[in-house]
Amino acid sequence: MKEGQRPLILVSNDDSINSKGIAHLVSLMKELGEVVVVAPNSPQSGMGHAITITDPLRYFEVDLFEGVKAYECSGTPADCVKIAKTHLLDRAPDLVVSGINHGSNTSVSVLYSGTMSAALEATIEDLPAVGFSLCDYDMDADFSHTSEHILQITRQVLERGLPKGISLNVNFPMRMEGEPIKGRKLCRQAKGKWKEALEERMDPLNRKYLWLTGHYVNQDQGEDTDEWAIANNYVSVVPVKVDMTCHETLSYLTEEWN
Amino acid sequence: MKEGQRPLILVSNDDSINSKGIAHLVSLMKELGEVVVVAPNSPQSGMGHAITITDPLRYFEVDLFEGVKAYECSGTPADCVKIAKTHLLDRAPDLVVSGINHGSNTSVSVLYSGTMSAALEATIEDLPAVGFSLCDYDMDADFSHTSEHILQITRQVLERGLPKGISLNVNFPMRMEGEPIKGRKLCRQAKGKWKEALEERMDPLNRKYLWLTGHYVNQDQGEDTDEWAIANNYVSVVPVKVDMTCHETLSYLTEEWN
Repeated sequence: MKEGQRPLILVSNDDSINSKGIAHLVSLMKELGEVVVVAPNSPQSGMGHAITITDPLRYFEVDLFEGVKAYECSGTPADCVKIAKTHLLDRAPDLVVSGINHGSNTSVSVLYSGTMSAALEATIEDLPAVGFSLCDYDMDADFSHTSEHILQITRQVLERGLPKGISLNVNFPMRMEGEPIKGRKLCRQAKGKWKEALEERMDPLNRKYLWLTGHYVNQDQGEDTDEWAIANNYVSVVPVKVDMTCHETLSYLTEEWN
Repeated sequence: MKEGQRPLILVSNDDSINSKGIAHLVSLMKELGEVVVVAPNSPQSGMGHAITITDPLRYFEVDLFEGVKAYECSGTPADCVKIAKTHLLDRAPDLVVSGINHGSNTSVSVLYSGTMSAALEATIEDLPAVGFSLCDYDMDADFSHTSEHILQITRQVLERGLPKGISLNVNFPMRMEGEPIKGRKLCRQAKGKWKEALEERMDPLNRKYLWLTGHYVNQDQGEDTDEWAIANNYVSVVPVKVDMTCHETLSYLTEEWN
């Protein structure tokens, strides 16, 4: 960043550029710097770290956020960050933020999360990145209680950076009247899984199809996890890394298998 | 597994059920147990850990592999494992294998990999799982040099299991005439990234679109990485974990930020 220049902040998400969560995040980021939005033109929840390699990609400039350059894109969240970096921005962003997701990305959901894939795509490029999610799936959810924490976290990341290869996965509890958030907790990802139910239905042509549904099952009683933080009305902050190697297992298997 | 029962082995992939790589893997797994195949009906490369939550899913039984129950599915690799486990199998598989992918899944590609997402989906369910990839993108690639290693690795996993929360990401160098594979190396994921090029084209209606292309840039000179192993004609075996928390950073940030 040149002297006198405001930080450049790239905003993306996975619920689409038209969602309430991204509008809230953009309004906050405008306080901190020059904002550019590149986000999917349709919901991309559960896209994980998908990228588009067998289809053409398109983007269009849209006028959605006052005083902010914004582009909707036909691709995934990871595609959006790639297109922003390679094609739309004239300098590297000082910060990449993703969200605010309508729904939780705690525990193992980090693997399925389109929100976090935008952040991790930036991390691969050694750009500081944070993904924000609210544990409320309502498309009209109340994001007001997240503002102060988002500003504090992003200011801190802008000032101090983040270790290489790390992004932050930040989850907020649902807003509860009369029960303000107790604070923030640095956490580890809870062990858990989604217990699927596949609902079998018949289509109008009498052919069977399935809907994938399910509920989260927590398998972790630790009080140092993101699940615990959310259940106790704290904001959870998990440092997430791009290196998926299990280094402990590496030494164990090297001894065991040789 | 009941006494006298053969191990149940679930096979999936991301290049589709019609690819040469999965056929090779199925033929090997038949030597070790009872095999069921549930794999996408179309190529799903680069799908990351995507799941299908806004569209119906369909599957059909197909007769592609002699003596093996096989289903093609409209979803992603992770969907296939979910459908297998919840809907198609009458007992938990003793082993889940994915691949053999036509193309490399070393380094940061593990995040984009549909092959590894099928394995990791099984790992979330505490099932032993291995993803196999050949560093050769040719749809008619030669897989013959992989057989002996795949059988040894999967036998070992069937006998000894894997630590909870861990799957193996196994990559094979491309077959080179007269240069047999030197052996296997337990490795860590190399630090690297894909340097994108977005090719701009015009469609027949004169509207601009982009193709996402790129090449891998290795940023890691370590001789303990998967990239090094492949470049030196070894099979790379990386233990990959579902927990993406960076525990080192957790302590560092806790001190630094509080």
